[in-house]
Amino acid sequence: MPEIRKDPVFGRWVIIASDRSLRPNEFRGEATPENPHNCPFCPGHEAETPPSIYTIPEGSGKDWSLRVVMNKYPALIAQGRAGIAAEGMYEYMDGIGSHEVVIETPFHDRQLEDMSVSEISGIFRTFVLRVNEIKKDPGIKYVMIFKNFGRNAGASLAHPHSQIIAMPIAPIRVVQEIDGARAYRAEKGGCVFCDILKQEMAGGKRVVGENADFLAITPYASRFAFETWILPKLHESHFERMDLKLTGSLSGIVKSVIGKLQVSMENMAYNLVVHSMPVQDQASENYHWHIEIMPKLSMVAGFEWGTGFYINTVPPEDAAEMMNSGKKYKL
Amino acid sequence: MPEIRKDPVFGRWVIIASDRSLRPNEFRGEATPENPHNCPFCPGHEAETPPSIYTIPEGSGKDWSLRVVMNKYPALIAQGRAGIAAEGMYEYMDGIGSHEVVIETPFHDRQLEDMSVSEISGIFRTFVLRVNEIKKDPGIKYVMIFKNFGRNAGASLAHPHSQIIAMPIAPIRVVQEIDGARAYRAEKGGCVFCDILKQEMAGGKRVVGENADFLAITPYASRFAFETWILPKLHESHFERMDLKLTGSLSGIVKSVIGKLQVSMENMAYNLVVHSMPVQDQASENYHWHIEIMPKLSMVAGFEWGTGFYINTVPPEDAAEMMNSGKKYKL
Repeated sequence: MPEIRKDPVFGRWVIIASDRSLRPNEFRGEATPENPHNCPFCPGHEAETPPSIYTIPEGSGKDWSLRVVMNKYPALIAQGRAGIAAEGMYEYMDGIGSHEVVIETPFHDRQLEDMSVSEISGIFRTFVLRVNEIKKDPGIKYVMIFKNFGRNAGASLAHPHSQIIAMPIAPIRVVQEIDGARAYRAEKGGCVFCDILKQEMAGGKRVVGENADFLAITPYASRFAFETWILPKLHESHFERMDLKLTGSLSGIVKSVIGKLQVSMENMAYNLVVHSMPVQDQASENYHWHIEIMPKLSMVAGFEWGTGFYINTVPPEDAAEMMNSGKKYKL
Repeated sequence: MPEIRKDPVFGRWVIIASDRSLRPNEFRGEATPENPHNCPFCPGHEAETPPSIYTIPEGSGKDWSLRVVMNKYPALIAQGRAGIAAEGMYEYMDGIGSHEVVIETPFHDRQLEDMSVSEISGIFRTFVLRVNEIKKDPGIKYVMIFKNFGRNAGASLAHPHSQIIAMPIAPIRVVQEIDGARAYRAEKGGCVFCDILKQEMAGGKRVVGENADFLAITPYASRFAFETWILPKLHESHFERMDLKLTGSLSGIVKSVIGKLQVSMENMAYNLVVHSMPVQDQASENYHWHIEIMPKLSMVAGFEWGTGFYINTVPPEDAAEMMNSGKKYKL
């Protein structure tokens, strides 16, 4: 049974999930399996994963183009007692929630930037549909959608996939981000993300993609070299409230940005994370959902992640210039 | 000129230091140089580093057992304009500060756990002396002392060394840690770290080292597998106020704990970070300096570091049991 423990200093919750150490490849220095014959996410291997929760096309058996399944080694599970318990001064709760895997394509080697806009659109539609389904359980407070690509970014399998973790508390980073946005409005009177959109569209030197509905930038205080954010131009606090008609233009900009990043840094590992409001919260004028893409170029960053103190050796303006001109970054 | 930029949402400061990308080995997937003939930190290569700021024995030329030099590729430098400037809605400041390297030993292969307690004691005495020297500049608000060991933890050179970065602002993680400790006192009436010491000494199942002056534990809400903290038993907010007589017992417990970690996980990479109050702040009854050791076993943790959402697959009680019994952790 996974357990969620609270750090008494930070109020930060940590999931202690010892069963997850059983999953294949974790902690190994080896390359991920390149042989589709061994891949549990490839067609013909459906029996090696838990059964489908959702497929495209819906109800399809063998001929799926996308499958959602429960993670075989979940960080959180559906059963457990609700509520906080104590061990002396420490607090913990049962690790109630869910952990789904979105197998994005039947093709073992078709990475995000190689898919069609319509294929990527299916992935984002699936995210929206799944979050709206999952949030029907009032015990679920936050749903985290993310994708790890490449070994340096924590992927344990090469086949294109992303993950959806539903949890009974909001991660502290989310709480701090919302607090920061609220403080900005209290001081400046606007949505901080809307103001970023305005300044970046006017300035242009950190813009790496734009269409009618979305803007992609290398943010001013980028923590990581080539860090990239994608923001909807229209204010909206919750990802899952997005008009499904927008998934096409979102997918277009995601494909373009990941493609540019992969030209500038061949075979770059990255984490892609959807930042959104807690699912049970009402729509907010302060917070603005967006996507953050964090390339993992360097082991060096390990120190910065561990301490919250960041050193970035590539100014975001230089990263944007390289991405827009198709220049290769010299490692 | 390095620049320090403020994230408008989090208030998090990020150092943008493009010159640092010139330093050897950064972003390379290769092993660190194992050949002492090429090592700038080995005796006989003193001319390849900036001149010594401090040595043991003091004033020594060739026959040093420890040297402190400026980092050749500094994250922050001494010159620049003080004060905050703006680019539209964004704030930044010149990257004023310093970045020193402590070459811990003349021996290329003598890692921390292989040194004598007296050698390690020299390192911690040096940290205390350097911080007390650096804080004489009232522009310096925080001094971060850390050690990266191994490529996965960001080390770019194999020769045993640690780093001292002096900066004009306190990192947000430090601010949040102090805020958390203040909130704990407001609610519970004590120092949160003193209370942790009390509960852990009474319980014992997360204790991995103890002597008259220090306790080592695997913390209750460990973010990383085998994360280990070392705390002074006597309340003290500032590392650099430590009685120099205590460096012997501190060094004994550091040697023992790193030794245990290296038995449980052969050739483990780690970050060791001294957590302390901002240097210009007065002594505080809320905050309690300590050392955090974060093993870097897994690339998987990359995601958690990037999002502030942690999944740990080794319960700290199991880690403590393995460390104390000398068992090897099966990767």
